[in-house]
Amino acid sequence: MSKTMSTCWFSHTKENMTDKTPPSKCPMHMLTRRSLFKAVGGLGLFAAGAASGVAAKNTSAAHGASTVAFRDKVQGGILTPQQAHTYFAAFDINTNSRDELIQILKDWTNASAEMTSGKLGDSALGLAPSRLTMTFGFGADVFSKGGKDRFGIGSQKPEALVDMPLFHGDQLIPEKTGGDISVQACSDDPQIAFHAIRQIVKLAGTKANIRWSQTAFVSGNGKETPRNLQGFKDGTQNPQASEMNQFVFVGGEGPAWFQGGTYLVTRRIRIALEHWDGMDVDYQEQVIGRHKLTGAPLGMKNEFDKADLKATNADGNLVIGEHSHLRLAAAESNGGSQILRRGYSYNDGSNFTAERWPPWRQGVEYDAGLFFVAYQKDPRDGFIRIFGNMAKFDMLNQFTTHVGSGMFAVPPGARDGEFIGQKLFA
Amino acid sequence: MSKTMSTCWFSHTKENMTDKTPPSKCPMHMLTRRSLFKAVGGLGLFAAGAASGVAAKNTSAAHGASTVAFRDKVQGGILTPQQAHTYFAAFDINTNSRDELIQILKDWTNASAEMTSGKLGDSALGLAPSRLTMTFGFGADVFSKGGKDRFGIGSQKPEALVDMPLFHGDQLIPEKTGGDISVQACSDDPQIAFHAIRQIVKLAGTKANIRWSQTAFVSGNGKETPRNLQGFKDGTQNPQASEMNQFVFVGGEGPAWFQGGTYLVTRRIRIALEHWDGMDVDYQEQVIGRHKLTGAPLGMKNEFDKADLKATNADGNLVIGEHSHLRLAAAESNGGSQILRRGYSYNDGSNFTAERWPPWRQGVEYDAGLFFVAYQKDPRDGFIRIFGNMAKFDMLNQFTTHVGSGMFAVPPGARDGEFIGQKLFA
Repeated sequence: MSKTMSTCWFSHTKENMTDKTPPSKCPMHMLTRRSLFKAVGGLGLFAAGAASGVAAKNTSAAHGASTVAFRDKVQGGILTPQQAHTYFAAFDINTNSRDELIQILKDWTNASAEMTSGKLGDSALGLAPSRLTMTFGFGADVFSKGGKDRFGIGSQKPEALVDMPLFHGDQLIPEKTGGDISVQACSDDPQIAFHAIRQIVKLAGTKANIRWSQTAFVSGNGKETPRNLQGFKDGTQNPQASEMNQFVFVGGEGPAWFQGGTYLVTRRIRIALEHWDGMDVDYQEQVIGRHKLTGAPLGMKNEFDKADLKATNADGNLVIGEHSHLRLAAAESNGGSQILRRGYSYNDGSNFTAERWPPWRQGVEYDAGLFFVAYQKDPRDGFIRIFGNMAKFDMLNQFTTHVGSGMFAVPPGARDGEFIGQKLFA
Repeated sequence: MSKTMSTCWFSHTKENMTDKTPPSKCPMHMLTRRSLFKAVGGLGLFAAGAASGVAAKNTSAAHGASTVAFRDKVQGGILTPQQAHTYFAAFDINTNSRDELIQILKDWTNASAEMTSGKLGDSALGLAPSRLTMTFGFGADVFSKGGKDRFGIGSQKPEALVDMPLFHGDQLIPEKTGGDISVQACSDDPQIAFHAIRQIVKLAGTKANIRWSQTAFVSGNGKETPRNLQGFKDGTQNPQASEMNQFVFVGGEGPAWFQGGTYLVTRRIRIALEHWDGMDVDYQEQVIGRHKLTGAPLGMKNEFDKADLKATNADGNLVIGEHSHLRLAAAESNGGSQILRRGYSYNDGSNFTAERWPPWRQGVEYDAGLFFVAYQKDPRDGFIRIFGNMAKFDMLNQFTTHVGSGMFAVPPGARDGEFIGQKLFA
């Protein structure tokens, strides 16, 4: 590995907590806790909260014993250096009783505070939390479903929690889309992420059930930007630590209960890897707009070099093509919009899945791809704007099919004695 | 953690290669490479081969750079200390040409030798093998399908490669059962295991396709017996290193091409965790026959203590119940039979899966459980005998449903210049 591939470091062992690059140059997910402390020190309300929110307490030298504080200004799992595994569950709430919903949220909050602190319960004897975080969000149906204000909170719906538009090429499966409440468990141990969701399910009894769920992972050594299933580094272009209030967290423009919150967009994006794997690396790099080995923008040497979107080659053609993924995702192509991606790869084996592009191969295909997870201050300026553009023009669309979708209003963290979303019911 | 929970150690960092227990007392999957060398030194033909087969070459200090030799007397992935992730693929061969099958096997052998040595190819730029192993097996249909000897090797079919009987309670899904050739990729990086199978798929073109596949993992710290999704230690009772020729590898009783081979049985076993999670730990321990925290047999203190199957409590009842999993799995209950389990947990999210037991809950259930993988010298004395008994009487059956199945004859390793199974075509 060249030195240029590891200019940002995140790790949870003291030995590796070296900062070779000023934190302001590192995308959020790459920051060490130490560098994150530095980066957000005194920056503002939510960033300061975030810093303590990601402060992991190493209770022993063992990897798995690390914990991430649950009770803080912003929820864990947003700015937390990305854990290796996730279990994401979208729940349907099977009651229209406000009191019963509040009770569920209280139970889930208490259980999450306990589990993230390492009290995992009888079902997980002998296991360790491994930086477990639990992140909750409210779907639009909690505020109003079929025109009915089920829980008396309809007037509190944040304006930007809009219906997701149908994008060019979408093939959404209803059983993998939507949901009243999202709960994302992240941990470095896949068993712990699943365990935590199982406890949540058990606590809700018949009052809530999983509508859909997704297991996913990131691989790599935990030091460099992780590579997605297409083999490219994914997450290089995330906003800087200093830009969280600008791009991720809701301020005075939102309802009072939602200040310090953020909007979560998830997409289950199948990637036709059987098709991608047949392409030359040169072509793959044209599609993405980056060099595969280094992650550098085309024409550049190092992963974090700034892309030159105007550069042309000897023939006068753009170096970073007009329909490349990098160009279409760039802030410059989207009026300055940025989102905080925290995506995972999923791999559910193989299946008979249809391709929207004229199929190049019949039969069994990989049921695998990107479980896209992104946080933003306003989805209309964030995912909807950026992906609306991509859905029409991105060369990558030849290989991708969006089969699941969710949008959730993720409230601020629950402080001591509060339950998640408490101010929504005040 | 008590000291008694970590009497055997396996690890791939030099720092942790301490042997606190004589290797002969450790189940195979728990052995360090160092202890395995000691354990098998001079024991016999296949065990000696196995020792060098699992000798990982640490090409750098980085975790991911470790490699496991592919070319050896027995295939990697059988005695190799268990990697954290697997991608298992069962292939259908879409040709009846002997030459084309041989070409596939040659291509797959060469690719496997390269990839396991760290030459992962363009699709995996910047990634490391992370102890990748590739393990191949032949299903009964390779020898004869619908009465037809497709490849002229029908007379070479090993006698013990019998049709799997239908067990009490089986609910096998055809799309998750059988297959002509099995290829199991194991790696500490889930992306690498998947990558390796993708290269195999690509090489076969239209001549072979995945019939079914399964991603799976083991969690834990890599030092103790891993815990399954039910929260119990799984693998404690595996045969000792000194017993591999007795229970795992085929000797003179098999056809010449198959000596040094072994039989693989896989079962995709859904576990009704939504149901299991509602049980008290006391009851769970009665079902399994072990203490949950320590893994000790009921009535004992330490994981590797010998179970006392005759012990009774003050009321005169058996301490380890008549229908407990431990008792039914024990060699003493099966005429001395033992198998080498190397199982993984799988977690494919949630689904509408039917229960054969009268359902306690309607709706969405976890699509998760045990991807059972076991090696044995003769499946008739191994899995078929042991599970035949369990399928009728095991209390654990309340929570488990076998939904997929496979049996494969795993040939010996391919030595320099050979392809996998070469002697079968001699």
